[in-house]
Amino acid sequence: MSGDSSATDKATLPFSEQHYFSSYDHFGIHEEMLKDTVRTLSYRNAIMKNKDLFKDKVVLDVGCGTGILSMFAAKAGAKHVIAVDMSNIIEMGQKIVDLNGLGDKITLLRGKLEDVVLPYKKVDIIISEWMGYFLLYESMLDTVLYARDHYLVEGGLIFPDKASIKLALIEDGNYKDEKIHYWENVYGFDYSPFIDIAMAEPLVDIVDNNSVVTNAVTVSEIDINTVKISDLPFETPFKLKAFRSDLVHAVVAWFDIDFPFDSKNGEKVTFSTGPHAHYTHWKQTVFYLNQVLDVKKDEVVEGMIASRPNAQNPRELDLEIQWDFKAQGEGDSRAQAGKHNYFLR
Amino acid sequence: MSGDSSATDKATLPFSEQHYFSSYDHFGIHEEMLKDTVRTLSYRNAIMKNKDLFKDKVVLDVGCGTGILSMFAAKAGAKHVIAVDMSNIIEMGQKIVDLNGLGDKITLLRGKLEDVVLPYKKVDIIISEWMGYFLLYESMLDTVLYARDHYLVEGGLIFPDKASIKLALIEDGNYKDEKIHYWENVYGFDYSPFIDIAMAEPLVDIVDNNSVVTNAVTVSEIDINTVKISDLPFETPFKLKAFRSDLVHAVVAWFDIDFPFDSKNGEKVTFSTGPHAHYTHWKQTVFYLNQVLDVKKDEVVEGMIASRPNAQNPRELDLEIQWDFKAQGEGDSRAQAGKHNYFLR
Repeated sequence: MSGDSSATDKATLPFSEQHYFSSYDHFGIHEEMLKDTVRTLSYRNAIMKNKDLFKDKVVLDVGCGTGILSMFAAKAGAKHVIAVDMSNIIEMGQKIVDLNGLGDKITLLRGKLEDVVLPYKKVDIIISEWMGYFLLYESMLDTVLYARDHYLVEGGLIFPDKASIKLALIEDGNYKDEKIHYWENVYGFDYSPFIDIAMAEPLVDIVDNNSVVTNAVTVSEIDINTVKISDLPFETPFKLKAFRSDLVHAVVAWFDIDFPFDSKNGEKVTFSTGPHAHYTHWKQTVFYLNQVLDVKKDEVVEGMIASRPNAQNPRELDLEIQWDFKAQGEGDSRAQAGKHNYFLR
Repeated sequence: MSGDSSATDKATLPFSEQHYFSSYDHFGIHEEMLKDTVRTLSYRNAIMKNKDLFKDKVVLDVGCGTGILSMFAAKAGAKHVIAVDMSNIIEMGQKIVDLNGLGDKITLLRGKLEDVVLPYKKVDIIISEWMGYFLLYESMLDTVLYARDHYLVEGGLIFPDKASIKLALIEDGNYKDEKIHYWENVYGFDYSPFIDIAMAEPLVDIVDNNSVVTNAVTVSEIDINTVKISDLPFETPFKLKAFRSDLVHAVVAWFDIDFPFDSKNGEKVTFSTGPHAHYTHWKQTVFYLNQVLDVKKDEVVEGMIASRPNAQNPRELDLEIQWDFKAQGEGDSRAQAGKHNYFLR
C-alpha cells in the first residue's frame, strides 16, 4: 500500500475528452515499450554514456512515439532533434516534450518519414527503435534505411547500428503439448484442423534458458550503416551441437543489438533478447518442428532457415526451416530430416 | 517432456495455404476461450447435465465460433442445431463439426444473425456465449435478444438466462503505483499527461481476493428471458461496508452467470468471474478512484455506478462512479467524496 499523490487528484475528464485520449493508437504498446527497461535503458545508456557523439549534433528520431529517445538525445546535448511518427501518439509526445521544457530542442512532425518535410537537409545522427518480433516482423527498418539514404550525412551515426538474429534448439515438450497437441482432444472433440494453424504460427513467448539444448548460431547479421532492403531476406545453413542429451521440439530464435560508441570517452552498449538474457517485450520466437529429435550429447543437427517478406504484405514474414539430424549415421533409427513453413502475420 | 504424435507429422503447408489459415479472425481468441475451462465446462455442464431439456429440440447457437457449444447441444440429443457466426472462424467450425461426425446435426451459417435465413421459423433453445469484459463491453447480448425476439418459441429457453454485475472496494496501492503513478517519473521525465488516460481506462486484470476490503453488491441484474436493450444502461446506488480497516484505491467489478436447468433430472449450473472465483479470461475490471479512502472496519462507503453505451460506438461503454465516504461523520478528516468517468473502448 502507498499513499496517493496529488498528480491524479484532478477534476475528472468529460467523456468527450476521454474519447479523445482513448483514441491514441496503442497506448498500451507504448506503456509496454517504456516499461521494457532492457530496451529503454539500453537506448538511454547508448545516448547518455556517449554524450560527446551527440553534443551540438542534429538528430533524427524515426518512429519517435512518446519522444523518449528524442528527450535522451536532447539531454545528451544535441543541437536539435527532429522526431517523426505517423501515429497520433505524437500529440502526446508533443505534450510531454513541452512539459519537460524541451520544446525548443525537439521538433515533432506527424506523418510518414517519406512525406514530411524536415527542417534540415541532413542530420548527423539517426536514432530509432524499429525492431519487431524476430527482429524483422512489422519492423520499421525500411523507414530507417530510407532516412539513412536521404538524410544522414556522410559518416553519420545510426543508433543502433548492428543487429543479428540467432537461434538454438530447445526441449519444449510440455508447452508443445499445450499449444499443439491440445487440439487433438478439445472437451472430447477432435480439433486437429487447428494443429496446422498452430504449427505454422511461430510462438512469441518466453523461453526458459534451461530448455536450450544446443549452442547458438548467428543466421543473419545486419550492419545498418550499409545494409540494403534487398539484403534483408536470408537463407542460412546452420549446424547446432547438443551440449546435453535431450529431446528437441523446436527452434528458438532471438536477436542481439549493438550501438555505436565514442571510443575515447564513451561506453559500448549492447543488449540481447535471447533466453539467457533479461526479459524484454520481444521475448523469443519459437518454431515447432513437426518431428521430435532424440539428440545425444555432442551430436549435431544441420539445417537451414530462410526468411523473406510475404509477397502480399511485406511487413509479414514467410519463414522456412529445414533440419537434418543424422544421429550416429547410417542405420541409426533416431535419424530424422524434415522441413516446415511458418509465417509471422 | 512427451513424445510426439502422428497428428502433426504431416506434410508441411505451402505458404499460400498458410496464409489462408492465418486469415482466420482472432485464432488466439478462440484458443483462449476454449482453454477457459470455467467458461467452457460451465456451458458443457449446463447442456450435458440437463439433456432432457435438449432432447429432440431445435437449438440456435448465436456467435458459434468453432462450434463447441453446438457440438455439446448435438451430443445432448438436440434434433438440430443452427450455428451462426459472422467471422470466418465458422469455416474452421464446419471442418471440426464434420470431422466429429456431426455435420448432419449441425447447420453452420456465416453471416449476421439479422441477415441469415434460418432453416426453421422458430427454435426451442438459444445458446450463446456473448459476454464481454464487465459483462457488457463489446458483448453480443443485443444479437441474442434479437434472436430471442425473432426466433425463440413461446416458453423457449436461453442458455444462459441470468447475468448480474457485482462490485466491491479494494486495496490496490502497489498496482496503482505501477499503472498510474509510474507516469509521474519515466526515466527522469514527467509523463503525467498519461495519468488521465490510465485513470480513464478501467483495467481488465486479475484481482487477488485478499485485496477486497468490503462486501460485494449487485448493481445490475439481467433476466435474458425478458430484458430489453433499452433496459441495459443502469445507474445504481450502492453501499459497501468494510470488513477490515485498510486503504481503498479502486472499485473492482465482475459478473456472475446462471443457466436454466431441468428441475426434475437436471443440475443447476452457475459461475462467477469474481476475485473469489477461479480464473477466467474475463478476469476482473478495476476502476481506480482519484482519491485514496482511509476506511476503518465496519465503515460504509456509499456511491453510485452508471453504465451506458457510448453514443458514437454502442459496443463501447461510458461509465461513471461516484463515492461518498463520510467516515465517522462531520469533522472526520478522513471523509472524502468524489466521482470519476471511465470508458471501456
